[in-house]
Amino acid sequence: MAELPVSPLAPAGFPDLPAIAGVRFATARAGVKYEGRDDVMLAVLEPGSAIAGMFTRSATCSSAVEDCRAKIGRGAQQDAGAAILVNSGNANAFTGRYGKQSVEAICSALSGLADLPQERIFTASTGVIGEPLPHERIIAVLSGMKAALAPDALEPAARAIMTTDTFPKGAGARLEIDGRPVRISGFAKGSGMIAPDMATMLAYVFTDAAISQPVLQEMLRRGCAASFNCITVDSDTSTSDTLMLCATHKAGNRVIDRIESPEAARFMDALQGVLLDLAQQVVRDGEGASKFVEVRVGGAASDEDARKVAFSIANSPLVKTALAGEDPNWGRVVMAVGKSGARAERDLLSIRFGDILVAENGWVSPDYREEEAAAYMKRSELLIAVDLGLGEGQATVWTCDLTHGYITINADYRS
Amino acid sequence: MAELPVSPLAPAGFPDLPAIAGVRFATARAGVKYEGRDDVMLAVLEPGSAIAGMFTRSATCSSAVEDCRAKIGRGAQQDAGAAILVNSGNANAFTGRYGKQSVEAICSALSGLADLPQERIFTASTGVIGEPLPHERIIAVLSGMKAALAPDALEPAARAIMTTDTFPKGAGARLEIDGRPVRISGFAKGSGMIAPDMATMLAYVFTDAAISQPVLQEMLRRGCAASFNCITVDSDTSTSDTLMLCATHKAGNRVIDRIESPEAARFMDALQGVLLDLAQQVVRDGEGASKFVEVRVGGAASDEDARKVAFSIANSPLVKTALAGEDPNWGRVVMAVGKSGARAERDLLSIRFGDILVAENGWVSPDYREEEAAAYMKRSELLIAVDLGLGEGQATVWTCDLTHGYITINADYRS
Repeated sequence: MAELPVSPLAPAGFPDLPAIAGVRFATARAGVKYEGRDDVMLAVLEPGSAIAGMFTRSATCSSAVEDCRAKIGRGAQQDAGAAILVNSGNANAFTGRYGKQSVEAICSALSGLADLPQERIFTASTGVIGEPLPHERIIAVLSGMKAALAPDALEPAARAIMTTDTFPKGAGARLEIDGRPVRISGFAKGSGMIAPDMATMLAYVFTDAAISQPVLQEMLRRGCAASFNCITVDSDTSTSDTLMLCATHKAGNRVIDRIESPEAARFMDALQGVLLDLAQQVVRDGEGASKFVEVRVGGAASDEDARKVAFSIANSPLVKTALAGEDPNWGRVVMAVGKSGARAERDLLSIRFGDILVAENGWVSPDYREEEAAAYMKRSELLIAVDLGLGEGQATVWTCDLTHGYITINADYRS
Repeated sequence: MAELPVSPLAPAGFPDLPAIAGVRFATARAGVKYEGRDDVMLAVLEPGSAIAGMFTRSATCSSAVEDCRAKIGRGAQQDAGAAILVNSGNANAFTGRYGKQSVEAICSALSGLADLPQERIFTASTGVIGEPLPHERIIAVLSGMKAALAPDALEPAARAIMTTDTFPKGAGARLEIDGRPVRISGFAKGSGMIAPDMATMLAYVFTDAAISQPVLQEMLRRGCAASFNCITVDSDTSTSDTLMLCATHKAGNRVIDRIESPEAARFMDALQGVLLDLAQQVVRDGEGASKFVEVRVGGAASDEDARKVAFSIANSPLVKTALAGEDPNWGRVVMAVGKSGARAERDLLSIRFGDILVAENGWVSPDYREEEAAAYMKRSELLIAVDLGLGEGQATVWTCDLTHGYITINADYRS
């Protein structure tokens, strides 16, 4: 398919991410599917790195996901080095026994080449489902990648894992712990099959902080709940969603081994910012997206109910097409609240577009002027705020509109 | 907005429906919103008619739905006549106290004019949400409609309740009970905001059979579960969905007052056919639809699981855009099975497109040829069949594809 124009919602450029001591990157052109671009990314971590991961809940998940989940679950051999290898262009999902064989072949080759235990090698594949992965093409470029490893190759790494993404997604943070500078750098890719159940397809975040593996895993779980699990492009969940967080322990801080400590809280704050930034970039690059939309729900009977309402709005094709048409069709927001399954009372509901009060007391606000709302809808960043007037429950999620571009991309993806 | 071309999936024409003794129809141009077409439908039933109804489960339902649900719930005054009044162009939903006032004004006017208790007058409104209904325009045409009532005006009635529908939807059946001919005739309208929770916006079915109200209500509940609650266009649920079934008791059969009787079973069979026909016509007229798709799931751990998988496939934007692109992208079916929340095992799953076995044993079938599947996808009527290989649970649902037409219609609906 023809190359897609860069999303109008893309940030100005790839951010200037800090290199992370203890991790190096390389990319290569294996020709898995794409021509003329890098499609394999290798990250190598020094011994002592803690590694945490979260994965799709899909019942038809890929072999790479199964393999990574099992390795994370068994607990890492933290004294050994580690590696992450990702290819784009082929998801290696639903390929029968070949799926597992490809994962094992790659892990085995990389293990020998980089002198790492297979238990510490994590792979991921993103792209078309159902076609066997030509893993020999990936194995053929491993040795060249090993020779090219560099600590500052974050942007090429972010680019190599892209599929229908129109821009590479990176985010970073700097903070101090125990008086030592600590850095976080991460990258991610989207951009279809994005839904709340571990949303992005792939995201990798690295830090030089010293954090024990169980605490790192809990930080990732909490961070994911408030970032990647709060976005949706099209309500579809991938077979390959993977989010990994690696801590190289090079910063020199005392090891953070309690999630309740002030150091953990400070790190969590910074991590949360990085994860949310990456997750929002995935939405900004949602297939065909022309609007970045925050849906904020308050006054619900519970947080769970607020989340139901927020996702009901954010996933509604009728709401999303109205956004694409720059139509302040708040009736469709009412509809989406009604169908959500959450407790709602029509006459207690209020709806705002940005600062514009649209509806309250079960009807359009007396001050509402359609022209004003129509002008607001022309913005590229929108807020839909709903107050259910029932309780304290709240939730915020992010989504994009549903445009002709989405249909064009997805009705013709494999051509 | 410009008039839409008739759906390529439309049936050859409106069926030749039998008139139902005891019910007469009229339509009129009230100018609620549309110009140059009838937009109000009146049905008047003779005394002795039993009336059953099912309504949207939306928490933000319309005042007409609230009113009808309460009247059906209190039990009808079956000795009196009854009337149904429907307008298109305005949903009278989310209009605060004006919603209820409009319903009461219409019921009151019709009650006086037709000498019917208000308790036996049922209204419905379909169209844009959030704008007050100009009910005085409707009241102004009531007297003319009363004078024009005729038993065979089913097609004009079906046309008057249309909104973005591109063809009127009717279905009928004839059978014998107690040696007496019994007739069923019904009509419905779609065609966006169609999802499993009482799916169509409006459907009215009439029979001359003698059936007690409680049995009629139970027949409708069962019939709806296997028809309107098995279709989806876009996963969105309307604030106004209404399905009513009226039995005039004119056929001369002994009153059916037990749901377990052979007569009830025979009537249910015929009713089921009518409801399913109407529900499928709603899908065939789904906004922008170019494919009519049956999704059949078997081998699930339970019927409930089968239904989850079937709707996960039928509502997936990625599956629906692939269908629009005539792309046999079965990987997206795998994805939709995986995200459904139902129990599934990748390696037990099999997938067929029509008679073509696509995948089995966790991978593409050795006999699968992409060209064959690509040729199949060019048909306008498609079957996606999934066997989960786990148990006896099964479900069948119907949907359509997601096309540029859907975006065009919905990004510009209010213009």
